[in-house]
Amino acid sequence: MDFKTEFKPETIQPQQIEVRSFEMIDEEIDEHQFPEEQYPVVRRVIHASADFELGKSMIIHPDAVQAGIKAIRDGRKIVCDVQMVQVGISKPRVEKYGCDVNVYISDPDVVEEAKRLNTTRAIISMRKAIKEAEGGIFAIGNAPTALLELIRLVKEGEAKPGLIIGMPVGFVSAAESKEELAKLDIPFITNLGRKGGSTVTVAALNAISILADQV
Amino acid sequence: MDFKTEFKPETIQPQQIEVRSFEMIDEEIDEHQFPEEQYPVVRRVIHASADFELGKSMIIHPDAVQAGIKAIRDGRKIVCDVQMVQVGISKPRVEKYGCDVNVYISDPDVVEEAKRLNTTRAIISMRKAIKEAEGGIFAIGNAPTALLELIRLVKEGEAKPGLIIGMPVGFVSAAESKEELAKLDIPFITNLGRKGGSTVTVAALNAISILADQV
Repeated sequence: MDFKTEFKPETIQPQQIEVRSFEMIDEEIDEHQFPEEQYPVVRRVIHASADFELGKSMIIHPDAVQAGIKAIRDGRKIVCDVQMVQVGISKPRVEKYGCDVNVYISDPDVVEEAKRLNTTRAIISMRKAIKEAEGGIFAIGNAPTALLELIRLVKEGEAKPGLIIGMPVGFVSAAESKEELAKLDIPFITNLGRKGGSTVTVAALNAISILADQV
Repeated sequence: MDFKTEFKPETIQPQQIEVRSFEMIDEEIDEHQFPEEQYPVVRRVIHASADFELGKSMIIHPDAVQAGIKAIRDGRKIVCDVQMVQVGISKPRVEKYGCDVNVYISDPDVVEEAKRLNTTRAIISMRKAIKEAEGGIFAIGNAPTALLELIRLVKEGEAKPGLIIGMPVGFVSAAESKEELAKLDIPFITNLGRKGGSTVTVAALNAISILADQV
C-alpha cells in the first residue's frame, strides 16, 4: 500500500484530544449531582454524546461503580444487546482480567426460538445470557425489549447480574424501560428520557473498565 | 438451550416500534427546512438519537440523496471510519447491489504506517480508502481527523467519493470538521455542532439504502 501524500501532518493524537475534551467538559458542566466516584462515568458519556443534558439525566445506583469494578476484576462475562455495543467496548482492558464480551442476538438458537415464540430476538437473547453470564455486566444500548425482559428476570429471581448498564434510545418503550430499571435495588447505570444508545452505553462500560484498571 | 420461562409475551415487534416511532417524530417535529427527498434521512437520524435538535442541525447537499442512491445501486464500496459504524449498517440491503462495507483503521499496513508517520490510524485509513473505494460512500461517525483528511484529499483532487456522510461527535475538531465538509460542493450529509456519532451516521446511511431499495 502506498500512503504517500504531500500532507505534513501536525497530528493531534486521540489521547490528547481526549484529555482536552475532558478539560472542556469539566469547565462547562456547571453544577451536577454526581458523587466523585460516579463522575468519570458521566463525563465519558458526555464525551461520547457531546450532550450535557443526556449526561445530567443519568441515574447511577450507589453500588454501581464498585460492582462494575468488581465484576471486571473477577473476570465476569460482559453481555451486550447488539453488536454495535460489543465492538465499541475496549477489549484489551477487560480481557486482561478474563472478561469476554458477548452478544447473543444473532445466535442461531436465539433466532429460531424467537421465531417459534413470535417474540423478539432481543428478549430471547437475554434469556440465554442470564444462564451464561451470572454476575456479569449487561450493557444494553439499543433494545428496550431486552432491558424490560432482563428487569423481569431479575424481579422473578431468575437473573443475578453484577451490573446492568441500560441506556437504550428511542421513542417507544426506551424511556419506560429505563424508569423500570431505576426502580430496582441492584447495581445499575441508566438515564431518564428518550436519549441514549450504543455509543453512550459503550462509554459507560469503558469508564468502568478504566476505573477497574486503576490501582 | 432451554429458553422456557413463565413469561407470556405480548411482544411488540421491532417493525411496529419503528412505524410508531416515525409517527411520533412526524407529529412532534414542528417546522423544518428539509425538502421531501431529504426528510427520510433526517427522520431516521432523529429516530436513532431521540434528538430533534441534532436532526434539525443537519445540512444535506442538494445532490446527496440521489448520489447516495446511485452509489448503492451501482454497487460502490462503503467505507466506515470505525467498526461501530461498519457493524451498524444493514448489510443485506446493500450487499444485494454488490456494495461491501469496509473499515481500514485496524489493517496492519494502516497501523504500521500511522506509527511510522506519527499520525493517527484514522488519517492513514482514509488514504488507503480513497484508493480502494473511488465513487463510494464514506461514512464517518467517530474520527474528526478522518473527516478532515478526507476533505483535504477531495480538495487536492486525490479523492472522488460518491457521497460523504460525515457526522463525528466531540469537543475537539468535530464541529470544525463538519463545517469544512459543509463548504464542499460535492454530495455530503452532515450536521453542525458537537453532536453526532456512530449511531446517527449509521442511521443516515441506512436511510439512503432504504431509499435505494425502493422502486
